[in-house]
Amino acid sequence: MDKIKVSILGATGYVGAELVRGFIAHENVELVHLTSQSFAGQLFSDIYPVFRGVCDKELSNLDPAQVAKDSDLVITALPHGVSSATVPVLLENGTRVIDHSGDYRYKNVKTYEKSYKLTHNTPELLEEAVYGIPEFYRNDIKNARLVSNPGCYPTCSLMALAPFLRKGLIETDGIIIDATSGISGAGRKSDLAYSFCETDEAFMPYGVIGHRHASEIDEQCSFLDGTGKTIHCAFTPHLAPFKRGMLATIYAKPTAKFTNISTEALINEYQEAYNKEQFVRVLSDKVLPNIKAVNGTNYLELTGRYDEDTGYIKLFSAQDNLGKGAALQAIQSFNIMFGFDEGTGLRNLVRGV
Amino acid sequence: MDKIKVSILGATGYVGAELVRGFIAHENVELVHLTSQSFAGQLFSDIYPVFRGVCDKELSNLDPAQVAKDSDLVITALPHGVSSATVPVLLENGTRVIDHSGDYRYKNVKTYEKSYKLTHNTPELLEEAVYGIPEFYRNDIKNARLVSNPGCYPTCSLMALAPFLRKGLIETDGIIIDATSGISGAGRKSDLAYSFCETDEAFMPYGVIGHRHASEIDEQCSFLDGTGKTIHCAFTPHLAPFKRGMLATIYAKPTAKFTNISTEALINEYQEAYNKEQFVRVLSDKVLPNIKAVNGTNYLELTGRYDEDTGYIKLFSAQDNLGKGAALQAIQSFNIMFGFDEGTGLRNLVRGV
Amino acid sequence: MDKIKVSILGATGYVGAELVRGFIAHENVELVHLTSQSFAGQLFSDIYPVFRGVCDKELSNLDPAQVAKDSDLVITALPHGVSSATVPVLLENGTRVIDHSGDYRYKNVKTYEKSYKLTHNTPELLEEAVYGIPEFYRNDIKNARLVSNPGCYPTCSLMALAPFLRKGLIETDGIIIDATSGISGAGRKSDLAYSFCETDEAFMPYGVIGHRHASEIDEQCSFLDGTGKTIHCAFTPHLAPFKRGMLATIYAKPTAKFTNISTEALINEYQEAYNKEQFVRVLSDKVLPNIKAVNGTNYLELTGRYDEDTGYIKLFSAQDNLGKGAALQAIQSFNIMFGFDEGTGLRNLVRGV
Amino acid sequence: MDKIKVSILGATGYVGAELVRGFIAHENVELVHLTSQSFAGQLFSDIYPVFRGVCDKELSNLDPAQVAKDSDLVITALPHGVSSATVPVLLENGTRVIDHSGDYRYKNVKTYEKSYKLTHNTPELLEEAVYGIPEFYRNDIKNARLVSNPGCYPTCSLMALAPFLRKGLIETDGIIIDATSGISGAGRKSDLAYSFCETDEAFMPYGVIGHRHASEIDEQCSFLDGTGKTIHCAFTPHLAPFKRGMLATIYAKPTAKFTNISTEALINEYQEAYNKEQFVRVLSDKVLPNIKAVNGTNYLELTGRYDEDTGYIKLFSAQDNLGKGAALQAIQSFNIMFGFDEGTGLRNLVRGV
Repeated sequence: MDKIKVSILGATGYVGAELVRGFIAHENVELVHLTSQSFAGQLFSDIYPVFRGVCDKELSNLDPAQVAKDSDLVITALPHGVSSATVPVLLENGTRVIDHSGDYRYKNVKTYEKSYKLTHNTPELLEEAVYGIPEFYRNDIKNARLVSNPGCYPTCSLMALAPFLRKGLIETDGIIIDATSGISGAGRKSDLAYSFCETDEAFMPYGVIGHRHASEIDEQCSFLDGTGKTIHCAFTPHLAPFKRGMLATIYAKPTAKFTNISTEALINEYQEAYNKEQFVRVLSDKVLPNIKAVNGTNYLELTGRYDEDTGYIKLFSAQDNLGKGAALQAIQSFNIMFGFDEGTGLRNLVRGV
Repeated sequence: MDKIKVSILGATGYVGAELVRGFIAHENVELVHLTSQSFAGQLFSDIYPVFRGVCDKELSNLDPAQVAKDSDLVITALPHGVSSATVPVLLENGTRVIDHSGDYRYKNVKTYEKSYKLTHNTPELLEEAVYGIPEFYRNDIKNARLVSNPGCYPTCSLMALAPFLRKGLIETDGIIIDATSGISGAGRKSDLAYSFCETDEAFMPYGVIGHRHASEIDEQCSFLDGTGKTIHCAFTPHLAPFKRGMLATIYAKPTAKFTNISTEALINEYQEAYNKEQFVRVLSDKVLPNIKAVNGTNYLELTGRYDEDTGYIKLFSAQDNLGKGAALQAIQSFNIMFGFDEGTGLRNLVRGV
Repeated sequence: MDKIKVSILGATGYVGAELVRGFIAHENVELVHLTSQSFAGQLFSDIYPVFRGVCDKELSNLDPAQVAKDSDLVITALPHGVSSATVPVLLENGTRVIDHSGDYRYKNVKTYEKSYKLTHNTPELLEEAVYGIPEFYRNDIKNARLVSNPGCYPTCSLMALAPFLRKGLIETDGIIIDATSGISGAGRKSDLAYSFCETDEAFMPYGVIGHRHASEIDEQCSFLDGTGKTIHCAFTPHLAPFKRGMLATIYAKPTAKFTNISTEALINEYQEAYNKEQFVRVLSDKVLPNIKAVNGTNYLELTGRYDEDTGYIKLFSAQDNLGKGAALQAIQSFNIMFGFDEGTGLRNLVRGV
Repeated sequence: MDKIKVSILGATGYVGAELVRGFIAHENVELVHLTSQSFAGQLFSDIYPVFRGVCDKELSNLDPAQVAKDSDLVITALPHGVSSATVPVLLENGTRVIDHSGDYRYKNVKTYEKSYKLTHNTPELLEEAVYGIPEFYRNDIKNARLVSNPGCYPTCSLMALAPFLRKGLIETDGIIIDATSGISGAGRKSDLAYSFCETDEAFMPYGVIGHRHASEIDEQCSFLDGTGKTIHCAFTPHLAPFKRGMLATIYAKPTAKFTNISTEALINEYQEAYNKEQFVRVLSDKVLPNIKAVNGTNYLELTGRYDEDTGYIKLFSAQDNLGKGAALQAIQSFNIMFGFDEGTGLRNLVRGV
């Protein structure tokens, strides 16, 4: 079989590098263009020495029309606003696209414009764009021209909430999402705030009011809920001293509909919802998710506990923010878009220690 | 002035070592006995080489009666259950005591016995024991024979909640405390789970239902609330890859009594409650607490944010789990008990990088 | 083609886990038995949760004869002394073996017995055992019944020294090997010395006189030198706060034979020696090795610098102590033994961030 | 007694912050001016939040003449080249100075100009400047107008070499200094190379030929040797993932004069040389230096081992690069200059965990 031709725009950020890592493990893919505004002309392996001899492709300037013509799929790992200027050109030139920015994640353009403080230049694409969580929108991804890869926090949170929202088992009012991310989530940049001496032995909340991912989570919660009502989750992200990984601890109240509630019942809901999913691990009442157990992988771990004393449901969700939270989930969608088994190239990407 | 004679029982745990660090910076203190079951006969600085030449005292076996006779104050950093067998002997022999275990933290012995799965052998001391948060119980600490130093999570959580509970500004139903601790909180021990290779790049919840500190928090919340009602907070601790530090992110709903609620109002409450406290830093609406900013200190940082979209109050509290969360808070109480300014020896204990 | 049947003895140590990681990425391998003395009856993924759904094989007790009969190759990751009691049984039962202990690394049994303070029970196998550095002994590995996988420090050091020793370009007297290892090198165990709080922000030399790997390096240096003379390198290992990785900085004096010495000449020697090797990266005079660039891989990075002021040659060598320094090098040998391309399953094992 | 008035120029770098930490623990010091080019007008505690409530002094622009007039001592933590433009103004205005740059560390201006690629504008001060290692030049420091605080690597290396160089016990030819520094050594700056994601799990050599500290070490070695001969040590620095700390492993050959050489003899030399020093810990043959044991302190740990197999002497030296390697050593010199006990404010600066 001919290999699928894939290009990555913005290949030298951390998401870009993880895309390269994933695709070189995928035997049916040929990487065609890797673009980089800052490092064009250098080799990808000059920027990421771990790829010396593994991926020494030269980085090129971005020529969207040309890239589109040369590629079956283009994955963009570009900044917000830059994506929406680039994606339309890619589509016009006949390629399919998976976009990593926030630009195509919303159906409601006003929510986007309020959250990102930008005017959207191609709002007409929002309807077409498919929100790239395969476990939710697999069928739409299959034939999508444009997949919008979700934010890391939204993936982690929504995967935990979905089974309960869909069945009306939790109150949509008062959901709390307390989440923690590794430092790669801030991107690859020269910023004192993310230097080793400032972040090691540090732990702090940030963006605690109005984080962009909150509105993304809220919109998707409304879709999962299905009743049309507006939902606002209280979302609080934190930054912790590890490179990769994300954990969400979620609190919700059961509805009256959730009879016979118990920890076992929570876990049963997860098992029922995800028992056919190869990248979702539902953990028993003896084990809790740990980012270490998903490091470098596309797996996501889930479990729940019912707290009798307070009546709260506690849900726990762990993923790698660059894995299931970004690049590797995009490859999962790629597999669906091009007819491969979803686990191709991804199933065995793990680390021992 | 004669120096106060202080002994530390269980001096080679992390709390014990932090007590030594704090007391050697206190010019009015003479360390008399440092006991250690495991390392008696060795020097304290054999166990903690950073103290070579600074504190080379020989570690001794525990003889409570003798220690009591030789000491104006004994600080116990012993395991739960061991403390309650030791503290009565110390008191009988005429010394004053600050205890670090859970044994004297409760007024209701049944809550203790349920949480610790032990039968208390000296429940009659519970009434006398003063819960050692100086900002709450300063006057009682002054003349106390027995101060029970609080748990780390309770200190961090209660300091954040107190101003609002006391004034009835938050609903006592549905309070959520999502907290993260550094690894020293697990104590100094040979345990694979806390080895570098298992904890670096790891982050996970633990003890998410029925953690002992939950019942301790709940009892104190009832006292702060003052209405006599039983309070249950939903408490979820997490473990993160740093040695020291603790952060609590707390969610609560305002009561009808809390009119004109806003972020500014939350911060005003903190300023009003703590403006005379030397170890509480109330942060503005521009800054959020970070464990790095309290590393190695007795300071605690607080701030609040009002989330209009959800109606939740978010409170943030950071401390060093070995500092304000344990050993250094005990020294703050010591200063009160023996008539020193509360900041003596503690005020300038900070780290630059 | 039928898959090669491989068993791993001692599968739950860090080397064992890395072997599993490597072999599951190898499409021509079937893992037959994973044994563990401590965890028999549990699943491999209970011990290493990152393998949940990836390798859930049940761990079994060690029955060497049965394992041998069921396997085309057995890889032992057993303690020193235990290996030499097990390997003969494996061989007698007709399987081939790659051993990770020190038991079969020496040709001179006396050196082994002095270094390991053990009496060797099967010294007759030492002659047959092939020292498993493919870049040195590829032809012998091909048909070997018993490959002895080298120590991590020896691999890193010998790869750097070999081109110069073989051509007599450096003095064999006075070679200095100053090396640093990550903490996984100490193995997976409950030991206070390797707990997070004791190792984070720590850095220290250890085993600075008479480390076992020194005698292993010395014996191989003699073979590479080829003149029959005894060589003693001054070897000093250090422990640093990272999980995986190893770097050797080596100092040697050029012999008179090394005319026109320069940094360029050093690098040329490396290029000439290793230009056909897929796992050796020779770095230019602009770049120095970094353990980050080989993390999770079977690659080894080398370069050299000539220090005119002192007349010293400086050689630098970086690898992953669990990768090229242990498990992944064993898989490289496996590929040779069973007729696969050396890079099968290994070439694309990398990490982006 | 009146307090000594001290100002710090460049107070917001890591050395500056450590100077503040040290001086606030010194009861005889009043901090007068803290200057910062980048942050003038802000509070010191805005930049270093750990000092909130501890040192909230406003940062000012640099006016050297005014600062000099207001201060008994000025400590400069300015870049190389900037110091030599500032220090003369300070001296002319009648204050005493401790300088942290390389500008006044050499006696031979040509060595400086070659190493720093700068033309020195006040070479006449080089003769007067005292090299600030109290253990070597205590008497000169006492009355010095200008103390040049040594580089971190030179302090660590020279303290280890001095006893042997002074007595002619080691060959001055062929000394090797293999050293490792924490990341704070690179200073406080926005640089991708020192970001958390690039430095965590990294370890690498850098500046392996011609590092500036090599020439500084060499010049001081010549002074310690006392025979007037030029000495070149082979010096190789490495960068490791911890904030603070430095370790040097040194290799040298004994001279014929060193009869009865043994590990014991090496340790005896250290004990003899440093037995009156309060900040030098000579370790026995059972213990090796660890940066953890000197973290946050002005202590330096030393020991030696004789390697019979190779004839090499191995010396080990650990310090905190910001402590004895920079700011705290400056305070040690300050104590000497102003007649305090050398340990004032420094003796008890330690960390437990």
